[in-house]
Amino acid sequence: MHMIDLITKKKQGGALSRAELDYIVCGAVRGDIPDYQLSAFLMAVCFRGMTAQETTDLTLSMARSGDMADLSDIPGVKADKHSTGGVGDKTTLAVAPIAAACGLVLAKMSGRGLGHTGGTVDKLESIPGFRTELSGEEFRAIVQKTGICVAGQSGNLAPADKKLYALRDVTATVDSMPLIASSIMSKKLAAGADVILLDVKYGSGAFLAAPEDAVALAKRMVEIGTAAGRRTAALITDMDVPLGLAIGNSLEVREAIDSLRGHGPQDYTRVSVALAAALLSLAGRGTADECRRMAEDAIRSGAALAKLREMTEAQGGDPRYIDEPSRFPRAAYTEPVSAPSDGYLQHMDTAQIGRASVLLGAGRERAGEAIDHAAGIVLAHKTGDFVRQGEPLAWLHTNHPAAFAEAQASFLSALAFGSTPPSPRAEIYAYVTENQVIYHRNN
Amino acid sequence: MHMIDLITKKKQGGALSRAELDYIVCGAVRGDIPDYQLSAFLMAVCFRGMTAQETTDLTLSMARSGDMADLSDIPGVKADKHSTGGVGDKTTLAVAPIAAACGLVLAKMSGRGLGHTGGTVDKLESIPGFRTELSGEEFRAIVQKTGICVAGQSGNLAPADKKLYALRDVTATVDSMPLIASSIMSKKLAAGADVILLDVKYGSGAFLAAPEDAVALAKRMVEIGTAAGRRTAALITDMDVPLGLAIGNSLEVREAIDSLRGHGPQDYTRVSVALAAALLSLAGRGTADECRRMAEDAIRSGAALAKLREMTEAQGGDPRYIDEPSRFPRAAYTEPVSAPSDGYLQHMDTAQIGRASVLLGAGRERAGEAIDHAAGIVLAHKTGDFVRQGEPLAWLHTNHPAAFAEAQASFLSALAFGSTPPSPRAEIYAYVTENQVIYHRNN
Repeated sequence: MHMIDLITKKKQGGALSRAELDYIVCGAVRGDIPDYQLSAFLMAVCFRGMTAQETTDLTLSMARSGDMADLSDIPGVKADKHSTGGVGDKTTLAVAPIAAACGLVLAKMSGRGLGHTGGTVDKLESIPGFRTELSGEEFRAIVQKTGICVAGQSGNLAPADKKLYALRDVTATVDSMPLIASSIMSKKLAAGADVILLDVKYGSGAFLAAPEDAVALAKRMVEIGTAAGRRTAALITDMDVPLGLAIGNSLEVREAIDSLRGHGPQDYTRVSVALAAALLSLAGRGTADECRRMAEDAIRSGAALAKLREMTEAQGGDPRYIDEPSRFPRAAYTEPVSAPSDGYLQHMDTAQIGRASVLLGAGRERAGEAIDHAAGIVLAHKTGDFVRQGEPLAWLHTNHPAAFAEAQASFLSALAFGSTPPSPRAEIYAYVTENQVIYHRNN
Repeated sequence: MHMIDLITKKKQGGALSRAELDYIVCGAVRGDIPDYQLSAFLMAVCFRGMTAQETTDLTLSMARSGDMADLSDIPGVKADKHSTGGVGDKTTLAVAPIAAACGLVLAKMSGRGLGHTGGTVDKLESIPGFRTELSGEEFRAIVQKTGICVAGQSGNLAPADKKLYALRDVTATVDSMPLIASSIMSKKLAAGADVILLDVKYGSGAFLAAPEDAVALAKRMVEIGTAAGRRTAALITDMDVPLGLAIGNSLEVREAIDSLRGHGPQDYTRVSVALAAALLSLAGRGTADECRRMAEDAIRSGAALAKLREMTEAQGGDPRYIDEPSRFPRAAYTEPVSAPSDGYLQHMDTAQIGRASVLLGAGRERAGEAIDHAAGIVLAHKTGDFVRQGEPLAWLHTNHPAAFAEAQASFLSALAFGSTPPSPRAEIYAYVTENQVIYHRNN
């Protein structure tokens, strides 16, 4: 087999066989295929796409390119949840404890944030003492004891994805549906869960703008998960506005704790409950309605909050921060962004708001950079609200007051005002399962 | 400027500016842009193409990436001729002496052959003593003295093309019209001729199968040459059958000498005369008819043969081989390929015939391999001929008789026979100038 023939085949619109994709994946990991051939291949895939079969074969090959976690000796249904990323997306902080409180085993590997979307691992590390870099043994021990653990990726998980993603990142070949699907799903499959729920976001704060594209990506990923023998489904959720009000690491943890106490922002709570219910339903715990009630009950009873506390303690975090969120250190400086005029907030460029939070210190531009856990933005208004001139639209938190001017300008430039209210948007657009797409009402 | 932005722009179908193309060309030559970004860009160009302006800008940038030969101190019109390659294509061996005999200055850099198309430099080296590796000074001195010199590429000519071509070769990005046009024309422009004639071939022995594609490529190249201030035109010629009867280095030199003596194969002689006449016409030597007569006269009078002899002597070759071609050493073994049945020779897969000649030792598979100058094929019949079973179709020449079986099978597999004659093809399809495409009759 010669790589140049495989590039040619894809360039001409052909479909590669499993053996051909294995050859590419192995060659990429071993370094036998030079980067310039891989990147030419990736660009050809951007133009020609891949069939469902090719995408599944590629993903399985990538998943098997390194360690495959085996959680079969841990009793119970092992569940994983993955979000394609968004601004203020702290759902894992609520969904994992809710699902674990309802009896699922949440053994989740999560990433660090880059750019305007924060990573769950960064958020959890804002709890003093919380450790996310665990050995495989520590991870398993915590999962077995508490039924829940959220850690950074350890071991040699899907090294083919690491290799290909790094190349895609510098060759303008990121935005390809089959490449995105295989990248996400190869890691999920390698992580070993029985049940996988995907949260595919669309809108101005997500990498996909249109809900139809999100549905298409979700279908492809559900197909792959199912083909690999995992119960897989996806919720398509709105990321045209930030989720909840808090953006920034400890600010988001506090909002998650608030929500598990029953008084967080409604949109965030609703999405978290829907995700947890979908996980329970995938795990066969009951009808959709029953699962939603179970998730709601886990919040109402305090069981979900107790799980978050238990996980925090098991991972070395100080549980008093869960009990008394006011302990979280606040940023030294806080300033409002004021409304420039009366009017309806008609649209938020949510990615731009994420970038404003990075200016304040809440995110990183490059891998390895430090994060200011206290920095971020707390919104006072979101799309659809009527605001009066001079009224605070949001509060900016930072330890570097020199950043205020640029962050305020950046935040304001993300907003569009008008004299009429925008049409309302639903938080949940659709539910994608192996067999069907269920579109939610009010869309 | 960032390479990733330029890749993205091309991927999305945008047109790059001159400054952006300069950035890519300089980055490629200096090694500032990694190969994996260049190859992703090249693949995007394969899918998106380039505008005429982009192609011209890219070519000029590539031409200027190294030395630009300055022949302005040599008196007369400096003329160059380039063929896109074919089997048995020995036109330079006749065209250059004819044009020089008519007063043009032929200062031509030529390549070595690779695969099934031989290079002019290889052919000339079958004349004992003939040197094609000349210093810049030697080259100029010979041109000034004799008005004709054909040498291998020397100096740092269009290093950007060298770099990009090597990458294209291993990333399946060769077959892109703007990349082919810029590769050819960057070298031609750097070589410094005032007048450039392109011989763009089509058919089973050329890299373009269809004459319309050859016209399109020719138009693009003529446009580039004209934009660079060179008088440029192209002939579109047939390569669905080998040109002449001889394929292989010394066999082709002998056929060229025969033709300059007035008794070579008609198709080869006609194409050579047409090319030489087009060069003369481009150089302003008269009407098309006058130029054709001048070229024919140069053969009839022996002036062209004398020029070939003069060039041979100036480049260290033994002129007695021009005077008495029977001196050329013959291959030790000769065998016929016999017709398998009665019938019309309906089609020849000419590239396949070229590969059969490589099996006999006439060409090289990889750069740097040695060539057997005496090896090759002499055709007894070509497309359109009626042949009787057992009659020789061609004679195979080699010094490695073990190669006969495979070469005979390969040769035969290139032929298609039938009971009716194929429709005749003209050698010259069209003439492409700056302003028009003149299609020849009988097409």
